[in-house]
Amino acid sequence: MKIAIVMGSKSDYPVIEKAEAIIKEFGVSFETRIISAHRTPRVAEDFASKAEETGIEVIIAAAGKAAHLGGVIAAYTPLPVIGLPIKSSTLDGLDSLLSMVQMPKGIPVATVAIDGAENAALLAIQILSLKYPELRQKMKDYKKKMEEDIVRMDREFQN
Amino acid sequence: MKIAIVMGSKSDYPVIEKAEAIIKEFGVSFETRIISAHRTPRVAEDFASKAEETGIEVIIAAAGKAAHLGGVIAAYTPLPVIGLPIKSSTLDGLDSLLSMVQMPKGIPVATVAIDGAENAALLAIQILSLKYPELRQKMKDYKKKMEEDIVRMDREFQN
Amino acid sequence: MKIAIVMGSKSDYPVIEKAEAIIKEFGVSFETRIISAHRTPRVAEDFASKAEETGIEVIIAAAGKAAHLGGVIAAYTPLPVIGLPIKSSTLDGLDSLLSMVQMPKGIPVATVAIDGAENAALLAIQILSLKYPELRQKMKDYKKKMEEDIVRMDREFQN
Amino acid sequence: MKIAIVMGSKSDYPVIEKAEAIIKEFGVSFETRIISAHRTPRVAEDFASKAEETGIEVIIAAAGKAAHLGGVIAAYTPLPVIGLPIKSSTLDGLDSLLSMVQMPKGIPVATVAIDGAENAALLAIQILSLKYPELRQKMKDYKKKMEEDIVRMDREFQN
Amino acid sequence: MKIAIVMGSKSDYPVIEKAEAIIKEFGVSFETRIISAHRTPRVAEDFASKAEETGIEVIIAAAGKAAHLGGVIAAYTPLPVIGLPIKSSTLDGLDSLLSMVQMPKGIPVATVAIDGAENAALLAIQILSLKYPELRQKMKDYKKKMEEDIVRMDREFQN
Amino acid sequence: MKIAIVMGSKSDYPVIEKAEAIIKEFGVSFETRIISAHRTPRVAEDFASKAEETGIEVIIAAAGKAAHLGGVIAAYTPLPVIGLPIKSSTLDGLDSLLSMVQMPKGIPVATVAIDGAENAALLAIQILSLKYPELRQKMKDYKKKMEEDIVRMDREFQN
Amino acid sequence: MKIAIVMGSKSDYPVIEKAEAIIKEFGVSFETRIISAHRTPRVAEDFASKAEETGIEVIIAAAGKAAHLGGVIAAYTPLPVIGLPIKSSTLDGLDSLLSMVQMPKGIPVATVAIDGAENAALLAIQILSLKYPELRQKMKDYKKKMEEDIVRMDREFQN
Amino acid sequence: MKIAIVMGSKSDYPVIEKAEAIIKEFGVSFETRIISAHRTPRVAEDFASKAEETGIEVIIAAAGKAAHLGGVIAAYTPLPVIGLPIKSSTLDGLDSLLSMVQMPKGIPVATVAIDGAENAALLAIQILSLKYPELRQKMKDYKKKMEEDIVRMDREFQN
Repeated sequence: MKIAIVMGSKSDYPVIEKAEAIIKEFGVSFETRIISAHRTPRVAEDFASKAEETGIEVIIAAAGKAAHLGGVIAAYTPLPVIGLPIKSSTLDGLDSLLSMVQMPKGIPVATVAIDGAENAALLAIQILSLKYPELRQKMKDYKKKMEEDIVRMDREFQN
Repeated sequence: MKIAIVMGSKSDYPVIEKAEAIIKEFGVSFETRIISAHRTPRVAEDFASKAEETGIEVIIAAAGKAAHLGGVIAAYTPLPVIGLPIKSSTLDGLDSLLSMVQMPKGIPVATVAIDGAENAALLAIQILSLKYPELRQKMKDYKKKMEEDIVRMDREFQN
Repeated sequence: MKIAIVMGSKSDYPVIEKAEAIIKEFGVSFETRIISAHRTPRVAEDFASKAEETGIEVIIAAAGKAAHLGGVIAAYTPLPVIGLPIKSSTLDGLDSLLSMVQMPKGIPVATVAIDGAENAALLAIQILSLKYPELRQKMKDYKKKMEEDIVRMDREFQN
Repeated sequence: MKIAIVMGSKSDYPVIEKAEAIIKEFGVSFETRIISAHRTPRVAEDFASKAEETGIEVIIAAAGKAAHLGGVIAAYTPLPVIGLPIKSSTLDGLDSLLSMVQMPKGIPVATVAIDGAENAALLAIQILSLKYPELRQKMKDYKKKMEEDIVRMDREFQN
Repeated sequence: MKIAIVMGSKSDYPVIEKAEAIIKEFGVSFETRIISAHRTPRVAEDFASKAEETGIEVIIAAAGKAAHLGGVIAAYTPLPVIGLPIKSSTLDGLDSLLSMVQMPKGIPVATVAIDGAENAALLAIQILSLKYPELRQKMKDYKKKMEEDIVRMDREFQN
Repeated sequence: MKIAIVMGSKSDYPVIEKAEAIIKEFGVSFETRIISAHRTPRVAEDFASKAEETGIEVIIAAAGKAAHLGGVIAAYTPLPVIGLPIKSSTLDGLDSLLSMVQMPKGIPVATVAIDGAENAALLAIQILSLKYPELRQKMKDYKKKMEEDIVRMDREFQN
Repeated sequence: MKIAIVMGSKSDYPVIEKAEAIIKEFGVSFETRIISAHRTPRVAEDFASKAEETGIEVIIAAAGKAAHLGGVIAAYTPLPVIGLPIKSSTLDGLDSLLSMVQMPKGIPVATVAIDGAENAALLAIQILSLKYPELRQKMKDYKKKMEEDIVRMDREFQN
Repeated sequence: MKIAIVMGSKSDYPVIEKAEAIIKEFGVSFETRIISAHRTPRVAEDFASKAEETGIEVIIAAAGKAAHLGGVIAAYTPLPVIGLPIKSSTLDGLDSLLSMVQMPKGIPVATVAIDGAENAALLAIQILSLKYPELRQKMKDYKKKMEEDIVRMDREFQN
């Protein structure tokens, strides 16, 4: 089982790292690539066209501004593609969000919150869980732990 | 293999039908429910908590305005939840979109375009394809057919 | 008479403190809880379902991003619920505001300004004043004092 | 027990009627007034200043565009004021919403969704319920009925 | 000839000072007041009602968030009222702008740019110029000087 | 005393007519011109440069989309320029509003609501009133009549 | 000299026709293609990669929603690409606009107004004019004619 | 071959420098001017009217807020005008973007991303390339180098 993370620019990595941390925590293998939909379109095409046969099962595409990366990759692969809109220097990430989520009919991109790297990773795990039951169990444990953490934090806060 | 579609209000059904049509085309079984995150919260909880054990593998949640349905269901299940924001009478669906996609850390909702019912269905199929290889093949055929349709339309348009 | 303040994350507390200060000033008892609509949905349900019987009369729910907390709590209680949208790191709080205020028909959330913690508290006091006439009088005094403060500030500014 | 509904313009009445219907259903007495914050400011002041002594306990203020009505009334009364933003011909009601909800520190307006007349009424009932226990019970019945309606609608939809 | 500047909060003064500087430069007398539409509504009414008879000829009203100050003052006076929307901590001033400029039919507020204090002052001068020809001449000189400044800056920049 | 109304396109006239009706009601002479900032820039310059000497005292500039007309005219005249943003076919008039109101330092445009033709006219009258006391009195009468109309409408509505 | 117009969907043609009419008026040859960035990515790549050698000198790309077409084509060609954002059924074309104009560093798309087909065509002509002086003259004539049309319309309107 | 860069204010220069760097890299001559559409309208007119005869072939116009500079220049010249919206202190550059891109029919401005100075320069080069084949080749090399840089960065990142 393998997740690919693709980012449009190396400057997106501080956000991406949070996705990697989650994926590691779940023990899933992954690779992180720097591929630009606009500056390296042929690499994007090549990567996306071959993703399935190289064993990748879910792709996370992170990009800012007119964030076409998710859509371009989704165009070339039947795999589920998760879009992670990155907040760029203007418009607070609204441009990235709309460029990712408003995909026209036929080619979906499963979009998560602006800079929501952890959720991109968790969604990838949830998708993999269909095939890998051990991940389903880990996801339940993860949710349980989140719940307990907040319950404990709440209890401590009362005192 | 089974998809559940949940809509917050029966008035969302004209949009939902387009998702159903795609799912049928792929030969996947599904059920469509009317469940409101706010008016029937216990039904939502009950549905989401038991979704996995009743054989549901992906859930599509469609809602408008302060569209919490996707988030509420995702809170109670480890299954992947697809959010379909419905355009309501004001704000052009921006409220639905933000209420779905901007989920806080821990509980993702895989959001598609406003009123993008077909893409919600296609994303569900792509997710199921991880486990069911026959759907992967059908998805490839579907994408090939879309491509051919546009190529043909383009050719006819030239004449 | 008792107000409950519920925040979706401990990181919201710097905003919440301002609400607590107002409530203390009016001599109303309150409790502040950390409850997440998404990570601790059962706690949210349990809290909201029992709020009335434990003597809570008004609830303030503070949350950011896809801020469902107010709506989720309002779904489980007949008490008035005040929504306090918290400005998160992107979109300047517009996502929180719309996720709280645009509640569908049937389940209102009384929404105040983004990060408007003082007003959430004052609204809670105004609501309690229906039943507790001493709070009504204190509210009149509070408004009178605000007025006098500004009049004095204006007078000093003239000199 | 008495609710006052104030609308900035008679053209808002088609929306207001839905609030009146709910209030009637709960058996609460009400009066509906046409008062403009800008064209009849002295009437607004007079109304708001005397509202408490004339037995009004909650005020619903409905207005569009730069919707100051809620704020102007709240400035002159210690009663809770519910803001109902009306969608005007441009900007989809966003101007009305922001003009109502973004009240500065000191004077809250409890804002509901754009054109959310039913929720304005239900919120008024919830507030009155603090003092009038029979309304609390009716509200529980109302919520139960909403729930049952949707459950039945869902059941019928399955067939 | 006299301009009144009214600000909703003393914290707006750093912006207001820039308007004062312009007005002084044109040799027009002015007074600056702290008046809140919401916290000192009676002061606002009193000020606006008497503005004309106390010799004020144009009013600049500066406020942030749900910026009703301009509208409230305009309701009580036949004088031209200039609205200066102040950028508050959230929403980048869009709330202030819409609350000022979107005034309903009958009561205009002459709105300038968010934080555009200099332009509020210049507009006040332009309005006074109708009656005071010496200001018209000074305005022409001012515009000429602006032009020359930029032409010189451009020339220096070329070298 | 004379007002000039300038519209960027003849298609704006249905909105402009409402401004003309108000101006006529106040007995002020006016002329309405079709001048495009972009298609007839020299006419715009010529008109604005000579406006003062031809006896015009206030200018209303109405335009849609990237509505530069107000700014272009204000650049060439010391007269007060009122900007009337027209709702065009997309973006609900937000583009027109921002293009008019967000004028940079030095050249103000007194902006009114989107499609707020009546208010543009009333603002022009208020400005003229500085010089023409009879208009001040008419404005007071106009405001009084508006007030009475609403009071009567309210009274009728009660019955 | 040759312009290519590419539209993402045949349903965009009613807008595109207005661009074609302008191009014909200038006597420039053109071809109009239906190519989808997402459904026919290989056709888009092939078209863009070969555009230069097939004699195309400027490309107009029209698309709605997450409008990647302009960016995708610009990625594969050194020719200037004009982006024409199409208003889709939600968000008033803001999504199309931002997806086109907010291109990241390195790959520009020359974006015109939402649904601004005429301007896309005129911009293409202006670009071609660098190389073809006869088009420069025609453009001057076109602008002169626009000017005269408005001047005449204005004159007729005065009578 | 010559590009003119025009900026509305000297404070825009830190953004403009990035455009200059690109243009220098391509060996194209350019001049940078400070011209304000509003404060130096006659200079703007004069500059734009004479641009063609002074050998300028493409103009880049950079401005913030109600950014009319591109439109004003485009009104006076048949040359292609590239609009570069500058992010000003409020509204994140949305006002600049809409004021530039939403040009009415007849006068296009080729708009690039907010603060997208490099892309403004690259677009200017692409336009010049129609006439100057050596620039076309340099553009291909530039794109190739961008591609290689990212490929190398990606490779290094893998290790």
